[in-house]
Amino acid sequence: MTDKPLILITNDDGVNAKGIKELTECLKDLGELVVFAPDGPRSGMSGAITSLLPITYKLLQKGNSLSIYSCTGTPTDCVKLAVNDILDRQPDLVVSGINHGGNMAICVHYSGTMGAAIEGCILGIPSIGVSLTNHSEDADFSESCRLGRQLARRILKEGLPKGTYLNLNVPNIPHVEGIKVCKQAESRFVNEFMRSENATGDPVYWLTGSLENAKPVHPENDTLALDNGYASLVPCKIDVTDYDFMQRLKSISND
Amino acid sequence: MTDKPLILITNDDGVNAKGIKELTECLKDLGELVVFAPDGPRSGMSGAITSLLPITYKLLQKGNSLSIYSCTGTPTDCVKLAVNDILDRQPDLVVSGINHGGNMAICVHYSGTMGAAIEGCILGIPSIGVSLTNHSEDADFSESCRLGRQLARRILKEGLPKGTYLNLNVPNIPHVEGIKVCKQAESRFVNEFMRSENATGDPVYWLTGSLENAKPVHPENDTLALDNGYASLVPCKIDVTDYDFMQRLKSISND
Repeated sequence: MTDKPLILITNDDGVNAKGIKELTECLKDLGELVVFAPDGPRSGMSGAITSLLPITYKLLQKGNSLSIYSCTGTPTDCVKLAVNDILDRQPDLVVSGINHGGNMAICVHYSGTMGAAIEGCILGIPSIGVSLTNHSEDADFSESCRLGRQLARRILKEGLPKGTYLNLNVPNIPHVEGIKVCKQAESRFVNEFMRSENATGDPVYWLTGSLENAKPVHPENDTLALDNGYASLVPCKIDVTDYDFMQRLKSISND
Repeated sequence: MTDKPLILITNDDGVNAKGIKELTECLKDLGELVVFAPDGPRSGMSGAITSLLPITYKLLQKGNSLSIYSCTGTPTDCVKLAVNDILDRQPDLVVSGINHGGNMAICVHYSGTMGAAIEGCILGIPSIGVSLTNHSEDADFSESCRLGRQLARRILKEGLPKGTYLNLNVPNIPHVEGIKVCKQAESRFVNEFMRSENATGDPVYWLTGSLENAKPVHPENDTLALDNGYASLVPCKIDVTDYDFMQRLKSISND
């Protein structure tokens, strides 16, 4: 058993989401799988951690090759707790997803799916997030499973550089051309709130909006690859230091 | 009124925290201030957004040069809602803090303070996060106010490159030597959970842990500057693409 790779699977849509179930199914023959995922939806939780309340977990299914746990915490909490206290060895791979909805461009900063991948990477584990650009509960995950599995196999064999994690997004089409290695598109959301009213007539605000790319569009943008029928793969760094500007800034300490 | 710079102030400790009150006080003469901050503690919320529930806000104080709002959302929600729906013009600066507790090294990935600075930057506004390495409610913010104000003045004058935000951390000592421009220290937390029990005897887990730097310690690490009595200033990028590895990875699309 211990010579099989150990794969930790989590997500931000919750342990009962179709995306994580299909992901688990398609990775089954690649190693020993432990699913340790939130007990319900945690979309948009980014790298949030639960610091003011305790968290707990439940074992839902125990087996030699597949165990499933649900946890009251965030995706990041899940990776932390599984690695620190649940697993008897360091995982060889963290796969987060498959997310119901895309996490391309700046979504890496809001995504709970990617928060979990970031945490795996911080803990020294090769880590990837996989997302499908379809929010619906019964989305078709066949292409994202195929490509996610292909990527997982490769990472298990070759590893990843320390401090680098991967963000795979798959377009919601029946046949995806393949994986294109991309950069994170420069973008922002526009028209971000829908104003509404609560039952007493007071205004409330629902987050919404659409992703708008900066012009001109860079040919290596992840959003462009998706528009062209490819899955986008962006390698991302834990170290977010802007080294170019750091050199220019150095004078500030002498002010 | 409109020729004064507009400064949006937020935080993750909530609108009533000492850190944001002292920050507001010390920035008063630099422009028109709008405080738009969470109605209570949102520590460790990272870049989380509220997507499943509506958010609301309250005007607590209205004035020509200072208005204060509290909001039910996360720090990131606060910046989004203020810029999209509350302010009548684009702010010239977002200042998030002063956080009760340090956000050096990898804490940029967990911090609600930094989540707000990231959001300001995504929206095209020069944005900084300011943190003091003292978690206590009645911490002494004099040095962090002095240095935060110095930085805010400089940014108002010189701006920041598009897509770059600043992470200022101030050590908890009576006299800080000055600001050192640094890189984000490579690090991770260890011993991250305290196991305890709830009232019915079931195990619960409290997040805790201590930050451990990777060895050898890089001379430009933010954590090292803090240890040596300096405030650390790390310029950070919204674009987290690992461009070096991106080039090496390109072959994967041909697999």
